[in-house]
Amino acid sequence: MKSYDEVPVVYDDYKPPKSADGRVHLSNPHLADLESDTLYHLALGTSTHNLEDMFGDVKFVCMGGTVKRMHEFAKMVARELGLDGGEGDAPLVDLTAASNRYSMYKVGPVLSISHGMGVSSLSILMHEIIKLVYYAKCTNVVFFRIGTSGGIGVPQGTVVITQQAVDELLRPFYELHILGKIVRRPTDMNEELIEELKACENSDRATSEYQTVVGKTMCAMDFYEAQNRLDGAFCSFTLQEKMSRLKEISEAGVVNIEMEAITFASMCRSAGIPGAIVCVTLINRLEGDQVNTSKAYLEKLQQRPQELVLKFIKKRLQMMSNGVNGSTSEEHH
Amino acid sequence: MKSYDEVPVVYDDYKPPKSADGRVHLSNPHLADLESDTLYHLALGTSTHNLEDMFGDVKFVCMGGTVKRMHEFAKMVARELGLDGGEGDAPLVDLTAASNRYSMYKVGPVLSISHGMGVSSLSILMHEIIKLVYYAKCTNVVFFRIGTSGGIGVPQGTVVITQQAVDELLRPFYELHILGKIVRRPTDMNEELIEELKACENSDRATSEYQTVVGKTMCAMDFYEAQNRLDGAFCSFTLQEKMSRLKEISEAGVVNIEMEAITFASMCRSAGIPGAIVCVTLINRLEGDQVNTSKAYLEKLQQRPQELVLKFIKKRLQMMSNGVNGSTSEEHH
Repeated sequence: MKSYDEVPVVYDDYKPPKSADGRVHLSNPHLADLESDTLYHLALGTSTHNLEDMFGDVKFVCMGGTVKRMHEFAKMVARELGLDGGEGDAPLVDLTAASNRYSMYKVGPVLSISHGMGVSSLSILMHEIIKLVYYAKCTNVVFFRIGTSGGIGVPQGTVVITQQAVDELLRPFYELHILGKIVRRPTDMNEELIEELKACENSDRATSEYQTVVGKTMCAMDFYEAQNRLDGAFCSFTLQEKMSRLKEISEAGVVNIEMEAITFASMCRSAGIPGAIVCVTLINRLEGDQVNTSKAYLEKLQQRPQELVLKFIKKRLQMMSNGVNGSTSEEHH
Repeated sequence: MKSYDEVPVVYDDYKPPKSADGRVHLSNPHLADLESDTLYHLALGTSTHNLEDMFGDVKFVCMGGTVKRMHEFAKMVARELGLDGGEGDAPLVDLTAASNRYSMYKVGPVLSISHGMGVSSLSILMHEIIKLVYYAKCTNVVFFRIGTSGGIGVPQGTVVITQQAVDELLRPFYELHILGKIVRRPTDMNEELIEELKACENSDRATSEYQTVVGKTMCAMDFYEAQNRLDGAFCSFTLQEKMSRLKEISEAGVVNIEMEAITFASMCRSAGIPGAIVCVTLINRLEGDQVNTSKAYLEKLQQRPQELVLKFIKKRLQMMSNGVNGSTSEEHH
């Protein structure tokens, strides 16, 4: 069976140079050869839609797992920014409805999109959304993942801003198999963006009933075995082995586990787009595996990352209306 | 960077012994210790629902990517089997609506469930559905994945029954990182089930406007780079390199590429549940990357795997009503 491990490994740390005009510049030369580009999983395309008209003003692309959460986020943004789409207005339109894959709502400069579960579902969306902001000629765009996670050693309801994404082997890269080779790409997050987010949080820390922390996020391919859970359909390890692994992970600086971070981190980096991951922890994995708090309470917890990202958006919009270009100069480093 | 490759590799080919009573027997000893089990992503649980009452009669668990496709499949099953849920009856109820993750419809002995996109989204569902049929004490259950795929060297609209699932490196296993180790599990499909499916298809081959073939299915973690597409946000290879890789893949016996096969294959095997993957090809990848045929035509193509699986279900139900136990004796081999 040894031949399975004789696969060439390539470390690809390509990162586009700083954008001079704030737009996304993709390094894929084949895109220029396409007569038209169908963004299949969004049911949008360059020959069927005027993407620049539809999306040219987008500044904030916010992604999260479920349709419901991202629909609620869009409504919250509409209410808070005083834009159409909040309660009482015309209902928000799902711009990708025809795809039957994701849901996408646009509220002014904010896109709110569901990405489903896991790295593969997210990666399809990321490819097509990165191409969308590229074709739409958006400037100074920031990406967010607003998610849920399992915490390690922090209380239920803690908000975690990801400092670095690692896989289940604690490796800081996103591994893809491309043309028969293993390709590994870095998963560093954008430090300035983390600082800017923390500054939003700090402004009312005294009144907060929960903590916001910055730490490593482990991205798992699976909810059960790969997250060291005992309660999947299969489990071949003991409680002691599980606890000892969770301790190792915790000692390596991991604060929470979810299922999309390495892909989000790596793809933002490769596209030269500042991106941040903000997740709430629904349980403390050192205390158990089952997520069995009431649904209503879990849904309340899910608003916490949304609130932080909304504060960030408001602050940025304020800066922009004051004539400060909130993005290009500091964030493409 | 060498230490990243010094990870222990474990080949785990455990497969449960043949079931004597037709029920699913899981080898996870921890399940017996749980006071109750919350199937979190299904919004069902052993203490909140009577799973045996709700699901004890299930014989066929059919999974596919989108909610829309699986809703249509459920309606088709209802119409064809003369059960409630077809057109004109009370609408089908989504039994996992509260989860906001998947959709699940039950029509008599058939469950029709959306699994989202990619191995991770499918694996969460598989863990929880395997536990569901286990708790519900279902007997002689068969699992199907009814999907879409890109074909290699077969015309658009070909139906592919998966003989073996391989990853993008052509390796016949599902790789998970568990407790710091790389665990590899086989992805063989159930041969009797493939024969039984082929027999359903053969019955009216003469009138068919399309081919049904049996071959290897490549499961990719990503829709673009890992499937050798040129049209993602990123691409670092040439058209020649792409075509040469697709040719290699084709010569290895791969007929189609999708994003769930290794997980479905491996998890069915580990649970001792006969499972089959039936996908239609939406394009021929030797001719291009873009899926840009009309949506209406693509939706028509998506019915082909559904029709084959429905034929199988009807035949099995006929056998069962004739007193032939269609499953235990032949399929757990």
